[in-house]
Amino acid sequence: MPVSSAPESGYCIGIDIGGTKCAVIAGNRNGEVVMRLERATVDGLATWPDAGETLAVMVESVCKQLEIAPTILYSIGISCGGPLDSKTGTILNPPNLPGWVNVSLQAFFSGRFGVRRVYIENDANATALAEHRWGAGIGCDNLAYLTCGTGIGAGIILGGQLYRGKGDLAGEIGHAVIIPDGPLCLCGKRGCLEALASGSSIGRIASQELGIPGLTGKDVFNLVKTGNELAATVVSKAAFHLGIGIANLLQTLNLDRVIIGSLASYAGEKYLDEVREAVRANTWKSIFEGTKIIPSGLGKGTQDLAALAVALPIED
Amino acid sequence: MPVSSAPESGYCIGIDIGGTKCAVIAGNRNGEVVMRLERATVDGLATWPDAGETLAVMVESVCKQLEIAPTILYSIGISCGGPLDSKTGTILNPPNLPGWVNVSLQAFFSGRFGVRRVYIENDANATALAEHRWGAGIGCDNLAYLTCGTGIGAGIILGGQLYRGKGDLAGEIGHAVIIPDGPLCLCGKRGCLEALASGSSIGRIASQELGIPGLTGKDVFNLVKTGNELAATVVSKAAFHLGIGIANLLQTLNLDRVIIGSLASYAGEKYLDEVREAVRANTWKSIFEGTKIIPSGLGKGTQDLAALAVALPIED
Repeated sequence: MPVSSAPESGYCIGIDIGGTKCAVIAGNRNGEVVMRLERATVDGLATWPDAGETLAVMVESVCKQLEIAPTILYSIGISCGGPLDSKTGTILNPPNLPGWVNVSLQAFFSGRFGVRRVYIENDANATALAEHRWGAGIGCDNLAYLTCGTGIGAGIILGGQLYRGKGDLAGEIGHAVIIPDGPLCLCGKRGCLEALASGSSIGRIASQELGIPGLTGKDVFNLVKTGNELAATVVSKAAFHLGIGIANLLQTLNLDRVIIGSLASYAGEKYLDEVREAVRANTWKSIFEGTKIIPSGLGKGTQDLAALAVALPIED
Repeated sequence: MPVSSAPESGYCIGIDIGGTKCAVIAGNRNGEVVMRLERATVDGLATWPDAGETLAVMVESVCKQLEIAPTILYSIGISCGGPLDSKTGTILNPPNLPGWVNVSLQAFFSGRFGVRRVYIENDANATALAEHRWGAGIGCDNLAYLTCGTGIGAGIILGGQLYRGKGDLAGEIGHAVIIPDGPLCLCGKRGCLEALASGSSIGRIASQELGIPGLTGKDVFNLVKTGNELAATVVSKAAFHLGIGIANLLQTLNLDRVIIGSLASYAGEKYLDEVREAVRANTWKSIFEGTKIIPSGLGKGTQDLAALAVALPIED
């Protein structure tokens, strides 16, 4: 286990809460991860208040191994699915965690450990913070980080600050409309970006086109690598639609950089080039040329660093 | 002529530069207009450097009537069509002013009058500043002001500050794509919001549908008032497309308020309701319910106040 050079009070805890697994990460303010515990969400984390007790014990266990008291932690940052209220540190009613409703994690951890700095952000915002601080967005004032996995969402940093919007719902561009009255989206609307270009949608559309049930986005990209032309057409259409979504984002925000996560990490350069070409064709030249569209710079530990970045808001 | 109660050094000058006319407005820091000169752009203002001399004489004339020297002006703010560089105070190559190319108004007015604070913004940004300060956006941290006249553009205020983007091109949502491969836009792209929903586009589309050449947006709204059903259909479609554009803006920025200028001032409440209904149908409930979509609050003097607002950036 690596030992940090930071003073004990410099430790932060990041908590990554997902529908499948939860992780507690200890790190220092330079983004160095020094300890990590993971647990399946079904294992004592599926419903509140049990989940709180489980998380608290995980935090205590990490602190014990670091030989510090939880009370001297610098901060705790939580990354989880929305909707949530970052002002009060409350998880509202996340679809991926049906057993957690109106859970104030800020109140819980402040009460339990007396830690004053407890922050919470949705996972796209959390990853945008991490990319800005340690990844593909270093030194960049205006950027969007796009998750393109099961769903599509963005974390938006403007003027060097996370932009959350009125109700922590900024960046929900997966549900911007790309094709009016287009295919039905899981959200109930039609023609949303997510229904056309997410990993899950690529799998679903390819399943229909190829007559192979249950394909995932990764499956489809693997089929493309084997030379399957139908799969390649599905991917190209998805890249085109993602490109329009990014083009519209750029016409709105004239960003320096768009960082694409999830899909982009295994889709390869050809897919990214197709996305870039669609952006070029659907934006102004002056806007397109001012922007870089690049894959995530954080690699495998992305979610850990995302949670840790929440513990260290830019304002620090 | 009303006389301001502000001290002489509290005077600001706003300059509104348009393709048809230019105005020089004197006001105080409370947004009270105390003096105004206007001149047709063809009259000594169509080409630089003549236009600089003409503007300077207009400023001198206003100052003379106010019995102050231009050198003690608090600031000068210029509102004009883009593209421009707000950092250097330079007009680049505006399509509505072909005789002005790479004109540094900041350098010109600083040199001519020794005024240190010379600012320049595009007209949508300038109007957003004025709405935020004195109009329909008072007290609102996150808003967009949409011009919907000849073209469509937005000025975006986030966290109480004007958001300009990397190259002063934020807010160019008139050229977000609403219908992929849709009708050709004047910008060369296809399916842009502006090609579907601007006043000019409403006129052009109605001219085709009704077989009446040369209709303007205002003409079409007047036809609707007389009960013309074809005209009403054209307007409803345009309202639907504008609604999608606003819906996508809201999914991206989760704004408190969207203020609609130009069209909305003469289109009436039915049109605005059609726009709102399209926004409702194409956004998340939680995002829609957090937002007000309202007409401009500034009335006839909007452009004057926009120029004056540029002279008084929010940062003051």
